[in-house]
Amino acid sequence: MFPREGGAVGSNREAPRTVAEASEAELVELLHAVLPVHASAGVVLGIGDDAAVLSPSAVRTVATVDAAVEGEDFLSVWPSGYATTGWDVGFKSCAQNLSDVNAMGAEATSALLVLALPAATPVDWVRGYAEGFAAAAQRLGAARLRVVGGDLSGTRTLTVSVSMSGELPGPALLRSGASAGESLIVVGETLGRADVALGLLASRRPADRVEAWDQRARAVSRALFEPLPPLSAGPALAAIAGAAMDISDGLVRDGARLARASGVGLELDPVALQAELATLEGWAGRHASRGLEHVLYGGEDHLLLATLPEGTPLPTGARSIGRVVEGAGVSLAGEHLDERRGFDHFA
Amino acid sequence: MFPREGGAVGSNREAPRTVAEASEAELVELLHAVLPVHASAGVVLGIGDDAAVLSPSAVRTVATVDAAVEGEDFLSVWPSGYATTGWDVGFKSCAQNLSDVNAMGAEATSALLVLALPAATPVDWVRGYAEGFAAAAQRLGAARLRVVGGDLSGTRTLTVSVSMSGELPGPALLRSGASAGESLIVVGETLGRADVALGLLASRRPADRVEAWDQRARAVSRALFEPLPPLSAGPALAAIAGAAMDISDGLVRDGARLARASGVGLELDPVALQAELATLEGWAGRHASRGLEHVLYGGEDHLLLATLPEGTPLPTGARSIGRVVEGAGVSLAGEHLDERRGFDHFA
Repeated sequence: MFPREGGAVGSNREAPRTVAEASEAELVELLHAVLPVHASAGVVLGIGDDAAVLSPSAVRTVATVDAAVEGEDFLSVWPSGYATTGWDVGFKSCAQNLSDVNAMGAEATSALLVLALPAATPVDWVRGYAEGFAAAAQRLGAARLRVVGGDLSGTRTLTVSVSMSGELPGPALLRSGASAGESLIVVGETLGRADVALGLLASRRPADRVEAWDQRARAVSRALFEPLPPLSAGPALAAIAGAAMDISDGLVRDGARLARASGVGLELDPVALQAELATLEGWAGRHASRGLEHVLYGGEDHLLLATLPEGTPLPTGARSIGRVVEGAGVSLAGEHLDERRGFDHFA
Repeated sequence: MFPREGGAVGSNREAPRTVAEASEAELVELLHAVLPVHASAGVVLGIGDDAAVLSPSAVRTVATVDAAVEGEDFLSVWPSGYATTGWDVGFKSCAQNLSDVNAMGAEATSALLVLALPAATPVDWVRGYAEGFAAAAQRLGAARLRVVGGDLSGTRTLTVSVSMSGELPGPALLRSGASAGESLIVVGETLGRADVALGLLASRRPADRVEAWDQRARAVSRALFEPLPPLSAGPALAAIAGAAMDISDGLVRDGARLARASGVGLELDPVALQAELATLEGWAGRHASRGLEHVLYGGEDHLLLATLPEGTPLPTGARSIGRVVEGAGVSLAGEHLDERRGFDHFA
């Protein structure tokens, strides 16, 4: 159901060994061998007892959780023919939690994993999950992160849940601290990348043309599974930003949340958004077919959105995309943008 | 699919309002109104930002996670006709995490919830879940516990995941600290109760006899969904016990884990186990049909298993059930007991 390599649908190699053929102990051992579980200053005791024992070096800590459900957050096989790998889910489930911790101004220190796996899940899928998770921690620079525990279960719907804790070196970066007059910035990759990737993966194409999926499409599609939240930016902004949050449901939808929490409005800068779009199009080519829609409403990019007092120099990697104003909601060129165009699991 | 009251299968009342008909915001609000989320000394910021901000008062903390999956950990409708309620899942998912935190010698302070809900789940199921969760915290005396965040998702398989953190007032209670010569004790309700309940719920009976399910069967079946871990015992034992752990997979299986972690053997006392069985039979009557099997191999009771140095007076509520010896594994009257008779999700 989840071949190790993406796109290998319909290959006629031997049936892979499944989790139903492995013991729970074997799977735990496999995860232990691949995930970052080694000793650290902040972890007194990791996997193996009723709970992990942590020794935070900061006075204040943060805690968050995110679930990924097959059929909701990703498809086992997409209309394009691409088969989601364990690596994809592992990278993303680590990165999106790291992004939340970062957006509070904290540094991630520990994670707990829940893997609920259908009986037919290949053992290699589990190994891929662990490799993807470890790769995200390494590529994003989460050097202190350790996996300290978890729970394995059977299920009919593959579900992964990651809860993560972090330490706050300074003040917490809240959504509620924005003031009129501040500039609005983003830090991270171009807005809209994950949305372009989603569009590509969700495009139906004849089975005989799966192989023809072009090189760029393959590269672009990675953006959905490999978000690159700017991990050093969170703690650095904590000392200077008014407010901040992770953009996971789209700029407009999340911006509206920040605006509401702070009792302000956000005015986006058309010129800055066009520049964002130009970068997106340079990267995605004709695949960025929905233009500014990707930038405004696309979710899952995991950039950092923040507000900075007037006159504060832009931190490295940050770009100004508008300003904080009196009022409410998010507007562009005088027009109110509809936040309900984002994603709601139940609506 | 999950009526609010158990056993109401086939009633012809109006179809309940489902989560598909509610917004995510409405469900969050509902959870917020029922769960213990109010301000506390240890929680600087709860639900509503990218992550919660905690301010632990202890130098060391613990962290654990447990998932409950429909079809694996519970059935929506059991062969007996009983329909699992949101309250059942809420109580249990809180209690089993509290038990893990307690078994480390810690006091629970914060929890993160993941609720992955099929579209047809009634909104009342979600309310019931929150009420059950809150009831467990209250009945078990987890006065400091707060729900500080979570994630809602759709799914095809109802899945709940709770991660919990706690603070260690003293040393951590590990599985690895047992020494030969110590006495083996349990604290909590009678061993085997949940197993008797499971047997009752899983017994197939003709649909026309569901109503005839006797009063005692109904009462006994609560033991599966309402485990009562002895929450004050963990921190109290931390100062005097050699080793301790939560019994979730059965006395023999979990005892073998403690024995392995400590490099010792455990010798169960036949007289003490008979006393345990007598109490079980007094409570369950003819429903305790598997005798000592319930006591030795039944899971999900969430008692505390611990070892005490010779001469240590038994703490209130504790009963001696054997002793720690040189060697390995768990034995009864000279006979080695097979730990593989416990539960393995994948074997």
